[in-house]
Amino acid sequence: MAKVTIIGAGAMGSALTVPLTENGHQVRLWGTELDSGIIEKLRKGLPHPKHKHHLPPQIETYQADELSEATKDAELVIMAITSDALGIIFERVVPYLKKGMIVGSVSKGFDYSKNGQIVILPEILEALLPKTLCPDISLIVVGGPCKAVEVVWRSPTAVTYSSKNIEAAKFMQSLLMTEVYRVEVTTDVIGTEVCAAMKNAYSVGLGLAEGFKTKQGFLHNNTKAALFAFATAEMGILTKAMGGSLESVIGLPGIGDLEVTGEAGRNRMLGEVIGGGLPASKAIEKMKQEGITVEGYPAIKFGYYLAKQLEQDQKLSIDQMPLLEGLYNILYNNAPAYQTVMRLLQNCTGYYK
Amino acid sequence: MAKVTIIGAGAMGSALTVPLTENGHQVRLWGTELDSGIIEKLRKGLPHPKHKHHLPPQIETYQADELSEATKDAELVIMAITSDALGIIFERVVPYLKKGMIVGSVSKGFDYSKNGQIVILPEILEALLPKTLCPDISLIVVGGPCKAVEVVWRSPTAVTYSSKNIEAAKFMQSLLMTEVYRVEVTTDVIGTEVCAAMKNAYSVGLGLAEGFKTKQGFLHNNTKAALFAFATAEMGILTKAMGGSLESVIGLPGIGDLEVTGEAGRNRMLGEVIGGGLPASKAIEKMKQEGITVEGYPAIKFGYYLAKQLEQDQKLSIDQMPLLEGLYNILYNNAPAYQTVMRLLQNCTGYYK
Repeated sequence: MAKVTIIGAGAMGSALTVPLTENGHQVRLWGTELDSGIIEKLRKGLPHPKHKHHLPPQIETYQADELSEATKDAELVIMAITSDALGIIFERVVPYLKKGMIVGSVSKGFDYSKNGQIVILPEILEALLPKTLCPDISLIVVGGPCKAVEVVWRSPTAVTYSSKNIEAAKFMQSLLMTEVYRVEVTTDVIGTEVCAAMKNAYSVGLGLAEGFKTKQGFLHNNTKAALFAFATAEMGILTKAMGGSLESVIGLPGIGDLEVTGEAGRNRMLGEVIGGGLPASKAIEKMKQEGITVEGYPAIKFGYYLAKQLEQDQKLSIDQMPLLEGLYNILYNNAPAYQTVMRLLQNCTGYYK
Repeated sequence: MAKVTIIGAGAMGSALTVPLTENGHQVRLWGTELDSGIIEKLRKGLPHPKHKHHLPPQIETYQADELSEATKDAELVIMAITSDALGIIFERVVPYLKKGMIVGSVSKGFDYSKNGQIVILPEILEALLPKTLCPDISLIVVGGPCKAVEVVWRSPTAVTYSSKNIEAAKFMQSLLMTEVYRVEVTTDVIGTEVCAAMKNAYSVGLGLAEGFKTKQGFLHNNTKAALFAFATAEMGILTKAMGGSLESVIGLPGIGDLEVTGEAGRNRMLGEVIGGGLPASKAIEKMKQEGITVEGYPAIKFGYYLAKQLEQDQKLSIDQMPLLEGLYNILYNNAPAYQTVMRLLQNCTGYYK
């Protein structure tokens, strides 16, 4: 039995309590200040409000001011914080980390490093570790198609844990893998992270094709499928330019996660609304008014700027990324969605060309 | 203006009249004996019964006994016949073929060669060409995500034409490509054909996950997405073992076509019914009674036997194909769908492992 602390009591953090308790581990779920209502409900024996489902009763719950108790003697700490708050929360966790601890992260996205470069999230975490601790803390990132609520329901799921330290990934795998939550391990941290972030961006594109149905009055499944293939190609180009491996792109973190994210969810929905005819600026204004976070929206900007950054470093050419450029123009410059997609489909050329 | 003859007046054959006439070519649509009712309707100016949509009025239509007139002086002949009848119909077309003609094929699947080996369809066509003609007829196969009716509607579509003779593929591309029907060309005939056939097989698998929703009462999108990734990996293993390229697998013919086929259609529907709890033998009996052809059903058997054949030739190991083996056991041996999928997800290992 291992002691595992989950930082963040949102959808994914709380879902992971299910395989962990199934494997008999001692699980502590720590909520941020924003999660205090969730923790209260769980303590009263109520269902998790995001899942409308009870979590395993044996888990321990901790409020924001109980971080010290929550992390005591943990062998594994899992960061389950939205990408925009990951750094701030991790800074609060760092004082409790000890040599040999394993840190997992389910956050997905990009951020700016201190020198203004766009980097993957593990680099943000590593930069926050004290130099004395850094070599002795192993980071593991989680990728692959995984709607949190389905982990709670026990729908058969397969995900990828990636770490530069494969033994650490295997340790985390040994704690979480069950007959319905399959975990594969790889060393391709970059590929897993680039795909995890970019699949949100490209899912907005897949959503556009869904919206075209409404706008034009007939199906656009061919369009969606073509966009799917070209999205994968561009994820491959971006991954390779960042130093990652195609293995992740054509595996669970890339096409697997893109498939599930294009099937349903807020990224797809944003695309669908715009594809249906609402100007992007209006769609985003509405989204902001309603307080809805759509990760694909910043991911398109981050991805596009990252591609530009990589072009400057002569690692790729922006001409190889017509879909990403098109999405940026639609989402940030109000370019007309239908015409833009029609035109860019003529310019997408796949991975090998 | 080129003269183009389409052999087969079904959904795909008739759909291709749209881009061809848009580009100003002289298009002849020839129907088999089974298509005579369709040809009659078209001659009366009625909509095509499969598309519920009018075809371009300038196309010429030919009944089964008018094959000679239909093929006269054709520069391009497109075979648009279901895979099980392709050989028989092509034998009737061969006497009208002349040196320098280009033959395209939109049929997808496998068949047995004369010596009992499972082969891709272009090999069946080549074997039927007289030796004197064979070197002077270029074959082009069509892959990629393309629901026929959406070509008629002019939904933006992107497909792949593959030929050993890239110039022939480019010629066919030049005749058909429009602003909404984008054509890329490759030389990977094997990859395009293996994907075209196997995506039907694996779509039955994706359908299973849809059926699990009904059976279990909750979503299985994680399961479907994991199956999508592992299906792609296995298409890659099979393609490489056959001598094809990964380019097609991670492009339009592979993941693109798998995406659209897993989204809707009869292959997915067969899987959905079985995933929902109907034993496979009953589902197939029902399908046969209703006269419905589901290409994925024979494709699973062909694919599995092909994998066994390739294992004998030491080109792959059947252990690399747990999803295909699982589908074979579910469809042909009534293995329980849910337990089989749950178990095989633990054994799928992706393309690179």
